This record gives sequence, C-alpha cells and structure tokens, in this order.
Amino acid sequence: MSGLVLSSFFSRAQSLNSSDYYSVVSINLFVTLLCACIVIGHLLEENRWMNESITAIAIGLCTGTVILLTTGGKHSRLLVFSEDLFFIYLLPPIIFNAGFQVKKKQFFRNFMTIMLFGAAGTLVSFIIIASGASQLLNKMGIGALEIRDCLALGAIFSATDSVCTLQVLNQDETPFLYSVVFGEGVVNDATSVVLFNAIQNFDLTNINFVTVLQLFLNFSYLFIVSTILGVVAGLLSAYIIKKLYFGRHSTDREIAVMILMAYLSYMLSELFDLSAILTVFFCGIVMSHYTWHNVTESSRITTKHVFATLSFISEIFIFLYVGMDALDIEKWNAVKSSPGKSVGVSSILLGLVLLGRAAFVFPLSFLSNLKKSESEKINLNQQVTIWWAGLMRGAVSMALAYKQFTLSGHTQQQKNAMMITSTITVVLFSTVVFGFLTKPLIRFMLPSPKHLTRMLSADSSPKSLQNPLLGNGVDSEADLGSPNVPRPTSLRMLLTNSTHTVHHYWRRFDDSFMRPVFGGRGFVPFVPGSPTEHSVHQST
Amino acid sequence: MSGLVLSSFFSRAQSLNSSDYYSVVSINLFVTLLCACIVIGHLLEENRWMNESITAIAIGLCTGTVILLTTGGKHSRLLVFSEDLFFIYLLPPIIFNAGFQVKKKQFFRNFMTIMLFGAAGTLVSFIIIASGASQLLNKMGIGALEIRDCLALGAIFSATDSVCTLQVLNQDETPFLYSVVFGEGVVNDATSVVLFNAIQNFDLTNINFVTVLQLFLNFSYLFIVSTILGVVAGLLSAYIIKKLYFGRHSTDREIAVMILMAYLSYMLSELFDLSAILTVFFCGIVMSHYTWHNVTESSRITTKHVFATLSFISEIFIFLYVGMDALDIEKWNAVKSSPGKSVGVSSILLGLVLLGRAAFVFPLSFLSNLKKSESEKINLNQQVTIWWAGLMRGAVSMALAYKQFTLSGHTQQQKNAMMITSTITVVLFSTVVFGFLTKPLIRFMLPSPKHLTRMLSADSSPKSLQNPLLGNGVDSEADLGSPNVPRPTSLRMLLTNSTHTVHHYWRRFDDSFMRPVFGGRGFVPFVPGSPTEHSVHQST
Repeated sequence: MSGLVLSSFFSRAQSLNSSDYYSVVSINLFVTLLCACIVIGHLLEENRWMNESITAIAIGLCTGTVILLTTGGKHSRLLVFSEDLFFIYLLPPIIFNAGFQVKKKQFFRNFMTIMLFGAAGTLVSFIIIASGASQLLNKMGIGALEIRDCLALGAIFSATDSVCTLQVLNQDETPFLYSVVFGEGVVNDATSVVLFNAIQNFDLTNINFVTVLQLFLNFSYLFIVSTILGVVAGLLSAYIIKKLYFGRHSTDREIAVMILMAYLSYMLSELFDLSAILTVFFCGIVMSHYTWHNVTESSRITTKHVFATLSFISEIFIFLYVGMDALDIEKWNAVKSSPGKSVGVSSILLGLVLLGRAAFVFPLSFLSNLKKSESEKINLNQQVTIWWAGLMRGAVSMALAYKQFTLSGHTQQQKNAMMITSTITVVLFSTVVFGFLTKPLIRFMLPSPKHLTRMLSADSSPKSLQNPLLGNGVDSEADLGSPNVPRPTSLRMLLTNSTHTVHHYWRRFDDSFMRPVFGGRGFVPFVPGSPTEHSVHQST
Repeated sequence: MSGLVLSSFFSRAQSLNSSDYYSVVSINLFVTLLCACIVIGHLLEENRWMNESITAIAIGLCTGTVILLTTGGKHSRLLVFSEDLFFIYLLPPIIFNAGFQVKKKQFFRNFMTIMLFGAAGTLVSFIIIASGASQLLNKMGIGALEIRDCLALGAIFSATDSVCTLQVLNQDETPFLYSVVFGEGVVNDATSVVLFNAIQNFDLTNINFVTVLQLFLNFSYLFIVSTILGVVAGLLSAYIIKKLYFGRHSTDREIAVMILMAYLSYMLSELFDLSAILTVFFCGIVMSHYTWHNVTESSRITTKHVFATLSFISEIFIFLYVGMDALDIEKWNAVKSSPGKSVGVSSILLGLVLLGRAAFVFPLSFLSNLKKSESEKINLNQQVTIWWAGLMRGAVSMALAYKQFTLSGHTQQQKNAMMITSTITVVLFSTVVFGFLTKPLIRFMLPSPKHLTRMLSADSSPKSLQNPLLGNGVDSEADLGSPNVPRPTSLRMLLTNSTHTVHHYWRRFDDSFMRPVFGGRGFVPFVPGSPTEHSVHQST
C-alpha cells in the first residue's frame, strides 16, 4: 500500500519518455543556481542593501527569464510551486533548526511576550486582513469571494517572514528584540498554518458563537497535541541514545538517529493532521536540551552545523523557487486583461498587511509594557522595528496560497489566478522593497557605535541565514534567578515572582527526574580523551 | 523546460487523489524502519553472525510480508526498485564518502594492485560470467537470451559488494588487505557500471576485433574523462573556498558549498553520460586533499561525519528496499510455473560468480606477488579472504538488473521475470548466507590475538558501515619515501623506484604549484582561536 505510492512517486519520472534526461538537467540547474546564490550571497554580505533572500529571488527571476526566452515563451508552466515539496522536504529542516538553535533561556524568559505577539497578534492580524479582504475585494469586481477564501487570505497574509530582519539585528546588542522578533516569527509560522488548516477542515456555512468557539477549541487542541508529540519524540530520542549508546558511542549512528527521529516527528504530525511545524519546533528544543548532550563531542559539532546548513540550503531553495515561479505565464495570462484590478488587489492586500500588523504590535507593546519596569519597556523605536520585522511575506504565504487557490489543479479561473498573482506580487514587493530598506532602517532606529566595527571585523563564527539566537544549547539558566529589576511595581512583582516560581519548580523537576532519565548537560559521564567543553566553544 | 520536468516530477504525487496521504504514510514507514535498523544493528554489533546489511534485509522482508498479508496479497507491485532513486539519490553519498574517507597514502601505495583487481579482475569476471551465461542459460529453455542480455548479466554479476567484509576486517591489523579489498570494491563498482553503460550504448549485432577495440576505447574514454571531471570539480570547490572565504570563514556556507559541489559533479557526469561513480569518487579524493583543509575546524568535523552518516543511511535504505522488493508478487507469479528452472538459473549464476572471481583473484595474486618481496607477498589465506570479500552481490547488481530487464516497464515476459528473480535470489543468498559466514571465516583465516579485545573494548571512535581506510585526510605521505624493503629483486626495484619517482615528482608539483593555488594541509593560514589539529584527532 505504502510502497505502491512511493514507487509510483519515484518511477513516474522515468515512465515519461525523456524525463530521465530532463530531471537530470533540472537537478543540475538547481544545484548550480544554489551554489551561485551562496557564492554571490557571500560576496554581497557587506552590502548595505542586499541580503541572501533578495539575491536568491533575483537569480530565480533571471533564470526564469532565460528559460522563458529560450523556449520562446511557449511553456506556460515553467515551474509549479508544489506545496508538497515545500511542506515535506523544505520546511522541516528550517523549523527544526529554529527550535534546535534557539537560546532557550531568552526564549523562555520572554515566553509571554513572544506568545502574545506570535499567537494573539497573528490572530488580530488574521481578523483584520480577513474582514478587510471580504469588505474591499468584493468591490473590485473579480468574482464573489467565498467566506472561506477571505479567511484563507487572512491566514495566508498573516504568515510573516522575518529572516531579512534577523540577518541585520545583532543578538548581543539587542538580545530582547532579537528573541522577540525570532520567537514571534516561529510561533507566527505555526499559528498561521494551524489557522489555515483549521479553516480548511471547518464547516463555515454559518458563523456564530459556537462555530468560533469550536474553531478556537480546534486551534487549542492542535496546538497542545502537536507540542506534546514533539516533546515526546525528542525525549524518546534522548532516552534511546542515552540507554543504548551509553559509554560506547558510535558517531554516525547517533547523527543518523537524531536526523531521522526529528524528521519522523514532523511526518508523524503530518500523518495525524496536527501542526507539524509546532511538533518539529518543540522536538528541536527538547533535542537540544537533552539528546544533544548525550552524544559525542563530534556528533554535537556535526549536528549543530548540519541542521543549520540544511536549513540554509532550504531557505535559498525556496527563494530561488519563488523567483522562478513568479514568471509562470499561465497565471499572468488570466489577469492580463485587467492589469488595473490586479494592481488594485495587490495594493489592498499590502495595505491590509501593514495595517494588520500595526493593529497588534503597538497595542500589545503597550499591554506588555504595563508589567515592565522603565528600563525594560519596549520603546517606540523598538516597536517600529518589531512592526517592520514582520512585514515581509515569504515562502509560507506562497505555499498556503497555492494550497488554497490551485486545489483544482489549474489557475484558469480568473479569481484564483488573481489571488495567486497578487500573492506573488505582495511576496516579491515586500521581500525586495521592504528587504532593501531593512538594513538602513534598523541602523537609523537602533543606532549602535559597535555596529560598523562588527560588520567589518573578520569574525570566524558561522553567519547563517537562519541562526538567530544561536546558542550551543548549553546556555546557563542559573542567572534567571537573579534579575536586576529596579523598583518593581506590585503587578510586575507578581508576574515576575510567578515566573520565577515556575522556573524554580521546573529546574528542580528537571534536575531530579528528567535529566537522570533522559540525560542532558551534566548527566552524561565524562568520556576520557574527548576534548573539553571549552574547545567546542572555541571551535564553533 | 527543465522546470517543467522538476515540477511534473514533484507535483505528480499530489495529482493522484489520495496520494498525499499515502506518500506521508510511506515516508513514515520508511523512516521508522530506518531507525529500527540502526537501533537493532547497534544492539547486534557484537553478534558474530549478524551485520547491518543482513539486519536491514531481514527487516525489509518482514515488513514486506506484513504489507502483503494486510493487503491480502492483492497488491502485485508492493515496491518497485527504481534505479532513478538509487542512482540519483542513494549511490552518490556512498561513493563520495568512499573517496572522501579513503586513506590516500594506502590507496595510492597499493594503486597498481587495486587497479589490477578492480579493473582487470572485473573484466575477467565479466567475460567468464557473460560467456558462461550464454553457454549454460540458453540450455535451460527459458527463451533465447540475446547477446546483449548475456553481456549485461556479466556486468550485473561482476559488481561486488564488500561492505560485509569491510565491517569485519581491521584496518590497523591488516592495512594492506583492507586497502585492497576496499579499493577494489570502489574501482569494481565503477568498472561494472561503465561496462554496463558501454554495452547499452553499443551496436552488438556482430562482434569482431574492431567492436571489441571500440568497446575498450569507449571504456577508456569514459574512465579518463570521468576522472578529470571529478578532479576539476574538486579543485574548483577548493579554489572557490580558498579565494572567497579566506580569513573570514562562514561554516554553513562552506559545508553547503562542499555538499552541493560534490553532488553537482555527480549530476554533471550523469548529464554528459559519463561514469558518475568515478567522477564523484575522485571528487571526494580531491576534496579531502585540498578543500577539506581550506575550511574551518568545525566544518572539517561536520563534513567528515555528515558524509559518513549520509552514506550509512543510504546503505541501510538500499538493503531495506532490496528486502521489501524481494516480495514483489508479479515477478514471482511469472516464474511460479517453473520453480525448477528458477532454482537452476540462480544456481548457475551463483556458480559463475564463484568461478568468475576465483578465476582472477588467484592468478592476479600470483602476478602481483612476482614484483613483491617475501614479506609483502599475498599469502594463500589472504587470497582466500580477497576472493571471499567480493562474493556478495548487492544494490548495484539489483539496480543494473532492473535497468536491463524492466526497460519495457513490466516483467510479465517470462525471460525478464526469470532474470530479475534470479538476481534477487543471488543477492539475497550471497548477502545472507555468505554474509553470515564472513565473520567466522575471517577469524579462522586471519587469526589475531588482538581481535577479541578490540571487539570488546569500548572505543569512542565512530564505527560506520562504510568507513574503511578511514583517514582524517591528513595522513602523512612522507614515509612513502623510506619503505623498509628487504633484498629487492631487480624487477621489483625498478617498479619501486618508478613509483617513488612518480610520487616524488607529484609531491614537488603539489607543494610548489597545486597547494599554493588550491590550499591543502599546511597552506592555510592559522586562524587564532581555532583548536589545534591535535584536538581534531582526539575528537574523531
């Protein structure tokens, strides 16, 4: 049964007459372009306007043009964005790496703020974009949009892409901002995909309080069960490696088990129709907290870099793909007759994106500031930075748009074609134009004397597209207990104390039960001959 | 054009109605089975009869049986062995890793012996099996075999699989035997695939001296051009990383470029119809000699383990696949009517395999011994070990058999079905039965007092399925200049001297021209803060 499909999936390419040859050609082309993106991205690293995403999109567009010209514009479907490829192969490494490399201390310290922005904020943005779309787009005369389409648009355009911003922010100078922007990005990804799936599986013929409640319960169910699955998968991998490989380490097996278990958690979550993104994100966190400490020194270095590299390649691949796909003729043909409408729809959506994000960043910052001391408050410049950081729309939006508007497999229908082209326009415009402005804007908003020296100094540390909050997974959590909080207000004191209490109990539970069973830092016997922790830090 | 195919390749799975779900199920199943194989393989590591290949085949067979039973034996094609999947995704990491991890000193020191066994030996084996098949199989009454089929059988059954043996041999105790068995395995893989492709592209209607000469020239052309492409790709990667990343290393980019360039060399070779195996093998050697030294410490550790792990996973995947595919009902139905014939054909082929290998191992060992001193001669026990090491047939044989006998896409034709089932039988029988006997046989043939202690000692070094001749790529070549050769004969002296002269000139050329341009050990400036070489050795 299962083999049947796998085989049909792989043997199909060869059942076409000359497809063997063409698939070899296209793999060559893609690998070459990936190499080109990496090299050019490296050369442009110090350029103040460019970043890797824009480079990849630009190269994708150029290649698309060349292919279009060489085929005489005949091929209407040059490259179809397949959400299967995206969700099964490209997204897992990106999200897993995000969880694996997250600085857990910062993440959990700012957990409430992150959840506020990532979950509540995305919900606000979703509601504004969905209602705005249903109000404004139906007046454009592009055919009646169903309620489901409008809600889908809300989910599609709530998915942010904060990679550009994270490449510019410096986590040592602005650790709080960094952790919020990064954490929000991850939770936002998960929330929008969960929202999108919840809408897909839901009867939306009549919306009332009960439906909304059901939607909310469905959302909570997905959120909780997905998280549990991820945590269990991570713990299982830690337990297996600790029990079986104890004292007799085998590097390749360890690495293989970690990679396979992480991927398995994602695919199991997909199988049970959960939020695979959340699952693999928490699997990454648990793996970096327990499993990572149970393996050999070499495995630790290898897994850390391998996950980052896979994530890096996937990101570039996606932007390349988006760039090439933007030139798919068929879709543009369908909207050619009404260019004005197309521009109008794109502008409306872009406006809604700007508005939807402003509508939660500033109010939620105000809310968040209520329980903070003067020195910890999010000032206006920081608020603008957070607002700007989430304006870019990326591959997740593309993938969701394709899932919603090409379910029938074609985009001849004008309404669908319009939505796809508008999504492409918004993604390209926001990534390229907003992306261009990010570096100058952040330097203006967050002036830093160290900034220039940092950019020019020859640092030997890895600078990846996606290693925000990069930690060795060994960040000490001890200093959480003694924050230097001046003159606490009563509300803040309550919240601070409760956080500290939760953290205290978690530490005790972790040390007395979890770590002895699942391993982790300090609970793995010293292997003679392996380099000290010190040398890992040096070499990474 | 190219995008067209890539998209059709990936979007096909979703064009089927429920295939999304099934492909998720099958990926889950496969990943779970891979994990199971790794864990069980680890548990059985000290078992004297078992090895990872047999474990994977056994698990594959069990799973195949379960699927067969749950579907009520309805599905005639459970899992089709796709040579595309094999040659495009699974084989490259295995062969690249072989080249990357080879101990270059040992490999080039025994280069002549390895080429003698790998190229000339495979040719002898090919001729014997092909002629034996054309003589014996046509008397079995299974339909007339064309001359092309017989030659293909020769190539198919000349491809050895020495993984089992390499798992048992100890490279510290028997370095010569190890390097010969391993090196022969690689060259043999390449030779048999090149032979197979040469046959495919050749007009074989009338064989005469000119045809044979053309075949030989074709073979030589493929061999040389493929090697050059691999070397060029490796040097290019070294040059790019040395020039662009000089002094400002970016670990993830380095790793990504190394992986992508290695894969690109393989795919380019495929594109030009060369021997991709040879290309990627030499690309691996060059990369480990130059590129590997130009990257950061972390990248070095990471790439070394990542290539080994990918190779390890691919190997297990292949054996799992072979085990599951063995239960494909359709093929067995076609030969059910004549079980006697099937057994007969398999036995004949197995006999030819044994004979074909004996026919070159012992004579070539004799030849090789002529130019060696008494202490360096290959004694009879070693000859038997070499003979035994190449008796197993594995995934390459399977892939070639499918390519030859399922070109029309089905195996209803009795002759084709018979060939496929016989190949499966030979592969399963040789891997399982011969594999079982390998450990006891080698302990009997090469008794070693250190053997037991080594197996039981808790070593922290990686023990991979495929890291024979594992070197750090930094093995000193200096000691080649002073071999302790007692009482040289004149012929041997001549050969030894010429080898030394070649090596001497190569060293001078490498030091004065190659290394300054392409980097390599000792030609990369010291990066302050990076751990010393010493700690790499410790940690690996």
